[in-house]
Amino acid sequence: MAKVSIPKNRELLVRRIGILCITLGLLYYLLNNFGLQYNSNSSRTVGHHEQYVLSGKDGYKYRKVSYEPYTGPKEKATFVTLARNSDLYSLLESIKSVEDRFNSKFQYDWVFLNDEEFTEEFKNVTSALISGQTKYGLVPKEHWSFPSWIDQDKAAAVREEMRAKKIIYGDSISYRHMCRFESGFFYRHPLLDDYDWYWRVEPDIKLHCDINYDVFKFMADNNKKYAFTISIKEYEATIPTLWKTTRDFMALHPEYLPENNMLDFLSDDDGESYNLCHFWSNFEIASLDLWRGEAYSAYFEYLDKAGGFFYERWGDAPVHSIAASLFLERDQIHHFGDLGYYHVPFHQCPIDDDVRLGNRCDCDPKKDFTWHSYSCGSKFYAVNKLPRPDGWQEHSS
Amino acid sequence: MAKVSIPKNRELLVRRIGILCITLGLLYYLLNNFGLQYNSNSSRTVGHHEQYVLSGKDGYKYRKVSYEPYTGPKEKATFVTLARNSDLYSLLESIKSVEDRFNSKFQYDWVFLNDEEFTEEFKNVTSALISGQTKYGLVPKEHWSFPSWIDQDKAAAVREEMRAKKIIYGDSISYRHMCRFESGFFYRHPLLDDYDWYWRVEPDIKLHCDINYDVFKFMADNNKKYAFTISIKEYEATIPTLWKTTRDFMALHPEYLPENNMLDFLSDDDGESYNLCHFWSNFEIASLDLWRGEAYSAYFEYLDKAGGFFYERWGDAPVHSIAASLFLERDQIHHFGDLGYYHVPFHQCPIDDDVRLGNRCDCDPKKDFTWHSYSCGSKFYAVNKLPRPDGWQEHSS
Repeated sequence: MAKVSIPKNRELLVRRIGILCITLGLLYYLLNNFGLQYNSNSSRTVGHHEQYVLSGKDGYKYRKVSYEPYTGPKEKATFVTLARNSDLYSLLESIKSVEDRFNSKFQYDWVFLNDEEFTEEFKNVTSALISGQTKYGLVPKEHWSFPSWIDQDKAAAVREEMRAKKIIYGDSISYRHMCRFESGFFYRHPLLDDYDWYWRVEPDIKLHCDINYDVFKFMADNNKKYAFTISIKEYEATIPTLWKTTRDFMALHPEYLPENNMLDFLSDDDGESYNLCHFWSNFEIASLDLWRGEAYSAYFEYLDKAGGFFYERWGDAPVHSIAASLFLERDQIHHFGDLGYYHVPFHQCPIDDDVRLGNRCDCDPKKDFTWHSYSCGSKFYAVNKLPRPDGWQEHSS
Repeated sequence: MAKVSIPKNRELLVRRIGILCITLGLLYYLLNNFGLQYNSNSSRTVGHHEQYVLSGKDGYKYRKVSYEPYTGPKEKATFVTLARNSDLYSLLESIKSVEDRFNSKFQYDWVFLNDEEFTEEFKNVTSALISGQTKYGLVPKEHWSFPSWIDQDKAAAVREEMRAKKIIYGDSISYRHMCRFESGFFYRHPLLDDYDWYWRVEPDIKLHCDINYDVFKFMADNNKKYAFTISIKEYEATIPTLWKTTRDFMALHPEYLPENNMLDFLSDDDGESYNLCHFWSNFEIASLDLWRGEAYSAYFEYLDKAGGFFYERWGDAPVHSIAASLFLERDQIHHFGDLGYYHVPFHQCPIDDDVRLGNRCDCDPKKDFTWHSYSCGSKFYAVNKLPRPDGWQEHSS
């Protein structure tokens, strides 16, 4: 090895530079590894690479860019999607939107569930698009069929009756299995055992705004357990006895309701009747422990035994919403008002210009549903004494 | 300042670390600044930052991520979009797609042109979404009106006739101004003087695949002057005399045609007739010098004087395509087959699984139009003796 010779009079300089280098290196290491704990002045860099590539295939020169994966602290969280193989290409729009607006920065996993085996095409294409790990699970038969105590003739008669009344999905068996599965079983699938948090994603949804923070960390750091974007009133004809059944359960188990629950979001007469407000569950970010816990387990079993998933057409949205509102402290429920969201036919589009333009939202605020009179957004802010954005009244009709 | 004392026997070690630090620093500097010139083993890092933020507005903790702007070498290039104020929200879909798939990595500028003044809303919203600089220009009246030599009665009679024949946009005056402007004037707008390259973007388009390389650098590095995604045949009724006028021009100016031109893409009988093949100009990546040059300037003026923009309904797509095919060397025209693209009603979706999944395309290859019999994609590959992807024949009907 060649020796490096340094003149005597440079020795002190070199020594000082050496010390400086070590100090800077140490400082860099400290900032990188310990600087993130609640210190708003520190920052952490995750890079992307660029390089010239001479393609062997077409002989052209390409100047390529590739991002390094995120290596910072993360929550134990996953996306979860119940889908059929035929949903693949409409689901890709949703996946691309979630990846672009959020997940490409964090690389959270994605669990897909199906009542049939996923095709190789479904698995290859979704894996290619998702930055985190992908997992594919089969829904067990007993989570997607009529339980033994259901009277099949009675259930069939209801479907016929609802078909005649033109109630949406009123005559569908598979829609009922789906609602019951999303209400009481998805979180029990073994693939979800590894996680504390989930974000539910459906085909054909869109996120309108950049999400520049870790929403799962947000939930954990701010003691939130359930979060929504759009809220709305349920079709009463699909849940005629759901509230009576819930009241019976509350009478049996008053111990499950914390004092500071959010009953006033669900009922305008102190629990006498249900005002039909619910969180639209095609979007959910929530703690899996909320559903795994004693209160919800008992509640779901009570509802399931009452048979309303089949004798009526109870949706997972009112079931989850009622449970979250009753079994959580009211400030454990969060409205992600800064996230633009679309599921046919409703948009959530932040009406506050600072929020909308600051997050690069691509939606028209005139189409926002949040403060519309048929939404329950305004009620959520009212009962929780939260400030509504300027001008919300102009969007209320 | 506190003095740092180092024991005598550590002095040598510190000196060596010092030299190591300087060497590594120098190496890092060199790699960063000079390592990119055609060296496929070097790479360059551009970071993003993460930090905890305590929001003053809502009191919540957010773990935020923000990207640093790109600082590597770039071309003098811009996006260019001709748009009306009413196009704003349909244009945002296009902008978001281009930013997500490509421009968020490079932050190229975007020039908007309009025959009326842009509204503040248009400017604020587009600026918020675009990572590069945005510029807004007014089209001068003389670039958006009937030239003096046009016989207004004759032009009006043609529009009436085309309306009766139900020719698409056949009765529209503004569509004709648009076609003439895109053919001969957009590149003369002073806002484009700063640039060598442009990428034309229209409302309601979508990019299906990640573009992980600088397409402008690609054009420059590989001696390309004009690039397209979708090609198709023109409605003959809109251009009855365009080819005859072009032939007259070629006879007058044979010196503008290089020997290795691509006439065989336009004509199946050595120039006798036009086969109607053209590049769909709602997508264009090209050199501005192609249009600024002597050949095209003379060609456009010849066409404009002939009056076919008004006496027929000549589109900018066949005009640009004919010019590029005649005035360039054939290998200066590039098909971006790796870019998924959509403009109603056609998709370009890479049928090669490696390309499609490798670039995270969200499209269904069964909907690809590139190899369809009504597309001119296959002809482009055939006349240029380029290899077509495996299985292209199965997509040809």
